[in-house]
Amino acid sequence: MPSISQKGQTMPASPIRKLVPFAEAAKKRGVEVLHLNIGQPDIHSPEVALEAIRSNQLNVVEYSHSAGFESYRKGLAAYYQAHRIPVSHEDIIITTGGSEALLFGMMACFNPGDELIIPEPFYANYNAFAIQAGITVVPLRSTIHDGFALPPATEFEKLITPRTKGILICNPGNPTGALYGRQELETLRDIVKKHDLFLFSDEVYREFCYDGAQHISAMELPGIEQNVVLVDSVSKRYSMCGARIGAFITRNKELLATAMKFAQARLSPPTYGQIASEAALHAPKSYFEEVNLEYRERRNILVDGLNTIPGVVCPKPKGAFYCVAELPIDDADVFCQWLLEKFEHQGHTVMMAPATGFYAQPGPGKKQVRLAYVLEKAKLQMAVECLRVALDTYARTPAMAGQEAASR
Amino acid sequence: MPSISQKGQTMPASPIRKLVPFAEAAKKRGVEVLHLNIGQPDIHSPEVALEAIRSNQLNVVEYSHSAGFESYRKGLAAYYQAHRIPVSHEDIIITTGGSEALLFGMMACFNPGDELIIPEPFYANYNAFAIQAGITVVPLRSTIHDGFALPPATEFEKLITPRTKGILICNPGNPTGALYGRQELETLRDIVKKHDLFLFSDEVYREFCYDGAQHISAMELPGIEQNVVLVDSVSKRYSMCGARIGAFITRNKELLATAMKFAQARLSPPTYGQIASEAALHAPKSYFEEVNLEYRERRNILVDGLNTIPGVVCPKPKGAFYCVAELPIDDADVFCQWLLEKFEHQGHTVMMAPATGFYAQPGPGKKQVRLAYVLEKAKLQMAVECLRVALDTYARTPAMAGQEAASR
Repeated sequence: MPSISQKGQTMPASPIRKLVPFAEAAKKRGVEVLHLNIGQPDIHSPEVALEAIRSNQLNVVEYSHSAGFESYRKGLAAYYQAHRIPVSHEDIIITTGGSEALLFGMMACFNPGDELIIPEPFYANYNAFAIQAGITVVPLRSTIHDGFALPPATEFEKLITPRTKGILICNPGNPTGALYGRQELETLRDIVKKHDLFLFSDEVYREFCYDGAQHISAMELPGIEQNVVLVDSVSKRYSMCGARIGAFITRNKELLATAMKFAQARLSPPTYGQIASEAALHAPKSYFEEVNLEYRERRNILVDGLNTIPGVVCPKPKGAFYCVAELPIDDADVFCQWLLEKFEHQGHTVMMAPATGFYAQPGPGKKQVRLAYVLEKAKLQMAVECLRVALDTYARTPAMAGQEAASR
Repeated sequence: MPSISQKGQTMPASPIRKLVPFAEAAKKRGVEVLHLNIGQPDIHSPEVALEAIRSNQLNVVEYSHSAGFESYRKGLAAYYQAHRIPVSHEDIIITTGGSEALLFGMMACFNPGDELIIPEPFYANYNAFAIQAGITVVPLRSTIHDGFALPPATEFEKLITPRTKGILICNPGNPTGALYGRQELETLRDIVKKHDLFLFSDEVYREFCYDGAQHISAMELPGIEQNVVLVDSVSKRYSMCGARIGAFITRNKELLATAMKFAQARLSPPTYGQIASEAALHAPKSYFEEVNLEYRERRNILVDGLNTIPGVVCPKPKGAFYCVAELPIDDADVFCQWLLEKFEHQGHTVMMAPATGFYAQPGPGKKQVRLAYVLEKAKLQMAVECLRVALDTYARTPAMAGQEAASR
């Protein structure tokens, strides 16, 4: 039997994969598992998008243009312009989710061995795409104690080598919910300009900013027009994760033409997903207002609730629909498994993502978990109560101390 | 401005891209362009698939399982079993088109610098995926004079080196329409077994075999169960190119688990496309009978017609919906451009794909073109007449001889 590739061996498995069998076993025991571990919102997709699919009159489900429907790209350019992002439809390639935009960008910009600096904790799959492109990810630690703010320029400078070719940010951030302000973005701009780096900006949570905070795009920064790649997606914006529609956007014409060759090779993005996404551009303003209000209330219930539990630290995120919490435990992997395997409270338990999967090296995330507030408020309330009781019970379970010690 | 990657520079542009502006100009002059250059069929998708989309009741367009709907995989396994391909749903990962299945397979099996033997002419995008994975493509010439039959084992053996890690076939073939029989597949099996190689078998045209020929899958070959990767797609089978649904299939559990990590990184295949594809499994038998009859008639009109033109050689393909023809010209790129730029016959002209794009090295395909018979019969008849007149005119146009010489 021929051997599999080194990349195949190095690719990370999903950080929560090993917990899934325990969640399934819990459900079989009749326990309701509250899923705070995934970024799949329960929010309805816009009716105008769903209806466009139901009323479509296609008889042949054809390939589209490799860059996506021109009409959709024009509509999307207008959306960006309304968000102070000055792009035309010719700067846009429609991709199969934000994932494909990241892959195109990494393949088009970086040679194997090139270094990409990413503030951590970061979205676990950045590692996976970097491995596919042969890129070396260089993590730059941000900390829970200042709400995962962007590290200062001096910290970036320490990591820059002759192989450094880019910086990747997620703003607002998955898993932290941190929102970078103008000063942080200007810091990034100065570094990018000084060292002539690519700046990849994953802004798929753009619409989810709270407490009056305004989202600033990396595309708004003057002086680095040729350096910025905007990665976008309708997955979270319209709760249409399954449409698999994203976008690769740059005003760098040479880079766009290069990414276009990758787009042509895979022929076209999904046709039905594009129909839904183009229609979603006409979702009423009230759609975002209602969704944002809902997420803000959920965040308050979850984060305020977590911070009333003794020993829990959870900065209040300004964006996205995640938070990272530090718990009074030694090993979040063990604790998350224990929650599913050994614990229930009034017939419920909680599934969370151990934060180790969001760090490049094990260690800093060992006491941390990521929680997604994608459940209705009553369930989030129950999740907080579950965690309160669970942490109290766990602290008083001598067997667990031993298991934790053994797993270290 | 930071430089783009070497991969980005090496990636091939679409082979027909430079002809597109000439086709657009011809249309603006009022000439009807008969598109024989693309593999986008005009055949209707199955009604049961279109209706499943129109009547879907999703309110949240969610991610699916990264391997695709379990129900769809189970249905697909039953489809394969009915085609004598012994696989279970646990051997299948649903992908975003056959393209993604190829990319997952290449990334999971091959290290940069590994060699992959592909009989040529071959589907141009195989090169693009190989570049993304860093693979060296080693072409093995097949010839128009024996209908692009599989070259004998001795020819494969000449190319095998310590870096050879796999063989890729397309059966029935794009661009040739050649269908490999049992003896050819057993030749491949013996080579694969002897040298412990991966065998990638792209069988997306499985349903399109003519003149009573039966399709044999590489998955049917005993003794190389751990070596074979089946690449499949609904794009051509159900004329649903825009659904972007394919499949990566192997009984090699380690390889499947590895490919699954690539699948998890990009989260899920398109949800709507899966709904359509699962429903399409219930297309009536008559759907394929009607489509096959239509394609067979089209093939006869096109290929028989071409062979009545003096100097044209076109083997009659036994599968798919393409043929490769050798024309009495010196340079197909120049001729194809001339057809769009300078020629019309009764208000029509023909757009074809110069075959150079399907060969690893320029040269052997210089007099050849690929034609797709994806147009209705009357238009194919007109295309043949256009070509007859065009070749006659072209031979008597002294300026063209000069232009051809200059381009060589």
